[in-house]
Amino acid sequence: MPKASFKARLNEIIFGTEPGAGRNFDIFLMVVILISVAALFVDSISEINQKYGEYLFAAEVLFTLLFTLEYAARIYCSPNRKAYILSFYGLVDLLATIPTYLSFFIPGAQHLLVIRIFRVLRVFRVFKLLHYMSEANVLIRSLNSSRRKISVFLISVLTVIVVFGSLMYLVEGPKNGFTSLPRSMYWAIVTVTTVGYGDISPRTPLGQFIASIAMITSYAIIAIPTGILSAELIQESQRAMSSRKCDSCQKFGHEKESNYCKHCGEKLTPPYG
Amino acid sequence: MPKASFKARLNEIIFGTEPGAGRNFDIFLMVVILISVAALFVDSISEINQKYGEYLFAAEVLFTLLFTLEYAARIYCSPNRKAYILSFYGLVDLLATIPTYLSFFIPGAQHLLVIRIFRVLRVFRVFKLLHYMSEANVLIRSLNSSRRKISVFLISVLTVIVVFGSLMYLVEGPKNGFTSLPRSMYWAIVTVTTVGYGDISPRTPLGQFIASIAMITSYAIIAIPTGILSAELIQESQRAMSSRKCDSCQKFGHEKESNYCKHCGEKLTPPYG
Amino acid sequence: MPKASFKARLNEIIFGTEPGAGRNFDIFLMVVILISVAALFVDSISEINQKYGEYLFAAEVLFTLLFTLEYAARIYCSPNRKAYILSFYGLVDLLATIPTYLSFFIPGAQHLLVIRIFRVLRVFRVFKLLHYMSEANVLIRSLNSSRRKISVFLISVLTVIVVFGSLMYLVEGPKNGFTSLPRSMYWAIVTVTTVGYGDISPRTPLGQFIASIAMITSYAIIAIPTGILSAELIQESQRAMSSRKCDSCQKFGHEKESNYCKHCGEKLTPPYG
Amino acid sequence: MPKASFKARLNEIIFGTEPGAGRNFDIFLMVVILISVAALFVDSISEINQKYGEYLFAAEVLFTLLFTLEYAARIYCSPNRKAYILSFYGLVDLLATIPTYLSFFIPGAQHLLVIRIFRVLRVFRVFKLLHYMSEANVLIRSLNSSRRKISVFLISVLTVIVVFGSLMYLVEGPKNGFTSLPRSMYWAIVTVTTVGYGDISPRTPLGQFIASIAMITSYAIIAIPTGILSAELIQESQRAMSSRKCDSCQKFGHEKESNYCKHCGEKLTPPYG
Repeated sequence: MPKASFKARLNEIIFGTEPGAGRNFDIFLMVVILISVAALFVDSISEINQKYGEYLFAAEVLFTLLFTLEYAARIYCSPNRKAYILSFYGLVDLLATIPTYLSFFIPGAQHLLVIRIFRVLRVFRVFKLLHYMSEANVLIRSLNSSRRKISVFLISVLTVIVVFGSLMYLVEGPKNGFTSLPRSMYWAIVTVTTVGYGDISPRTPLGQFIASIAMITSYAIIAIPTGILSAELIQESQRAMSSRKCDSCQKFGHEKESNYCKHCGEKLTPPYG
Repeated sequence: MPKASFKARLNEIIFGTEPGAGRNFDIFLMVVILISVAALFVDSISEINQKYGEYLFAAEVLFTLLFTLEYAARIYCSPNRKAYILSFYGLVDLLATIPTYLSFFIPGAQHLLVIRIFRVLRVFRVFKLLHYMSEANVLIRSLNSSRRKISVFLISVLTVIVVFGSLMYLVEGPKNGFTSLPRSMYWAIVTVTTVGYGDISPRTPLGQFIASIAMITSYAIIAIPTGILSAELIQESQRAMSSRKCDSCQKFGHEKESNYCKHCGEKLTPPYG
Repeated sequence: MPKASFKARLNEIIFGTEPGAGRNFDIFLMVVILISVAALFVDSISEINQKYGEYLFAAEVLFTLLFTLEYAARIYCSPNRKAYILSFYGLVDLLATIPTYLSFFIPGAQHLLVIRIFRVLRVFRVFKLLHYMSEANVLIRSLNSSRRKISVFLISVLTVIVVFGSLMYLVEGPKNGFTSLPRSMYWAIVTVTTVGYGDISPRTPLGQFIASIAMITSYAIIAIPTGILSAELIQESQRAMSSRKCDSCQKFGHEKESNYCKHCGEKLTPPYG
Repeated sequence: MPKASFKARLNEIIFGTEPGAGRNFDIFLMVVILISVAALFVDSISEINQKYGEYLFAAEVLFTLLFTLEYAARIYCSPNRKAYILSFYGLVDLLATIPTYLSFFIPGAQHLLVIRIFRVLRVFRVFKLLHYMSEANVLIRSLNSSRRKISVFLISVLTVIVVFGSLMYLVEGPKNGFTSLPRSMYWAIVTVTTVGYGDISPRTPLGQFIASIAMITSYAIIAIPTGILSAELIQESQRAMSSRKCDSCQKFGHEKESNYCKHCGEKLTPPYG
């Protein structure tokens, strides 16, 4: 087999998603990634680490070698190597291997090993073959076209957090757990988002009264992002629904009831034949 | 009464939902199921179990005999016995009796008895007579046609959980309760879904800062599934409306209540046939 | 003044809401109710009760006499006395006075006094004059016409609660706080509704895993009631918007774009003049 | 430079938002505000205050002098000085400087210093240049036109809180943490808004049962404000679309992007003039 054609074939297998070798490679890779992430999870439990730490380490070295091989192959068969290396997935692929190597040389790099968990992001590459992208695009477009409304909402939420956080710092004070302004803000965020751990909670009657107002306020404003996105998604899908093309000016976006093109004024062919 | 006709009559009573014997049987069965489940609930409270355990056990034996009889009758009068036994409700009916019998023979099967709680699922069979199904179908159809958007949402949520969970494992560490990666993920899920037990909560300032970002992120993304479903349900109901055509001017978009075409004034054919 | 006309005038003042004596009486009553409820709140704090309990009791007697007088006057001037006494507000008016009298005669009736808090419901009568009713009706109509979808949702939620509650009872067991089935169901409700007190929380890894699944499930299904109500409210308001009447058959419900009545086929007058 | 023109130029720089001196001043001011607020945050942490308190105090004096200078300049160059001083931002500008001065003269005014945090509100003035206002207006208009529905919702929520709060006071009582009616109401608000700190939680089985009902109720009603706002936002955007009329056939319902009437094919006048 000539070298160029081998490279093209390898590219097809590694980067391709068609049924056959390309898809099989993807599925194999996904399984390996998920096992390596599962090993990572299990290894972080200290009892298991003490008992089976050595076996898990051996497995980890194996996974890293495999991913290194894959990374090298990807670089080798990329038409534009630099573009691949600097791409999002190129960096994720690199990050999947580096921490293990570093832990050999740098003694305190134990913590760096957690970075390996971002290997899980590599699974998303495989998801490309499931054609979820168009759906994700609708969501992203909706979020994008309502980004100003969402900014207004986030600014309102931040104002609520700052106002109630500093009020509670004044009212409750350090002796009730509101030891500093940042900690009060943390309390306000925990409360406004309705998470409510209870690690810091108001103890004075006045503090509980102010907290009650904060909660009812946040209860009311949680409706805002939902309303914004609902409205946007409905419009987005109505826009998409009206994918009727004018034969004259080739433009889309005509409603079902339209008789004439709204862009050029020519008569439209009736919908549904 | 000839055997075949007796079997048909029994089938009508047991499986049927028409007013009369069929409905009465359903109501009687529902009451028995609910009482047996209530007995199960009450029996799980140790004080009550110590005092009235024997009576409750006697009642349980009675219920089990009743359900066994019913199960046998259902098998007997089914036109297709194998289909019934392997159907969802067939298995639920079997599960409603087996645990009690097993507890006689296997000493450690005490825990199996909780399986009897799934008897409550048998109540849903009775709900069939309330014609809720068409409503459930609209919901299921909406969920189904937005399943890709919901998958995209769930993948985003899982990414947020993995990213914040592993970050917190790094930042807070085992001494603050984040003893392992799975436990950190558990914390992240408790936080992102805004449940917020407070059994694990960040204690370092940096951890509280990262947790704050996780909370605000999750607060924003909770809007996504709601927006998706709202948009879908609205379209579903508009689709139902716009699928009616005028025979005269061939235009769509007539409501269920309309008798005449709103575009040309001709009489419309009645909806649904 | 003749007796009949005095009665009619009294009725106007007490039950009426027109500007003048009727509205002034309403406002005076609302203020008295709110003060009496505030006194009740304050009196329930034991430190205040110990210091000012006597004064608050004196005030309470005064309020009760006032409400008794008002109740007698309402009965006196009602055109249909029996209907008033048995109406919702008639019973609330009675409940506002009875507990205080009972506490004189029955020594252990101290707890009954809390019933007086339902005096706050009497404020709603006054709200009638604010014409909020039509808005409330839109909401109630929307909730009503989507009651089947909401039932389907509630049944799903209850199933989730029963399934996860009994699973956790099996997995965590009494030693981790899941002492009985009802208590496990309480945990499941606290979790599924995202309240998350943390008074009972899973401690075993398997329990935490199951709880995580329960949380993500509930996170997804919280979108359902919101979506249902959004869709319903939009349709409700679109229905109301199309309040265009046909001159021929006097029926409403025509869209802005309609040229012909969809009920009788006659030509409609164009919208907006 | 004549005095009047200097004043006008100063006004342009301080109040203006055009690219050049006006925008540069805004950006400089925003940076200074954010640094001064960050200093405030950091200063409230007692360890940092003990170590670097003196430096932070010096910085604070500098910031205050700067803001005082800015305040004086704003008064000087305002065309209508009284209007500026009494405006929202005029008061916020004053509040940004006063607490520091007061802390020199009044010894116990330490707590007043927290008021300085409202300097953060001054950042919003700068946001004006980002044209977020039209988006905020859509939100405010939607909230405004659904304010009656939201009032009905808030009244319902308050009724739920009062009913369940007083029930729990009766059922759980002081020995389980429900020491007074206001505290029970606080519990009810924490529960209904799904915050769920867990600082007060029901301990008796009956209390847990009632709390469960309260949670499921609140779970169902959280859908109401979202549904209201979604419906309103969708209508708001449809209203914007449908207010454009064709001059030829007098029909409404044209989108912003349309050039020709979809009903008769005539050219439309461009939107917004």
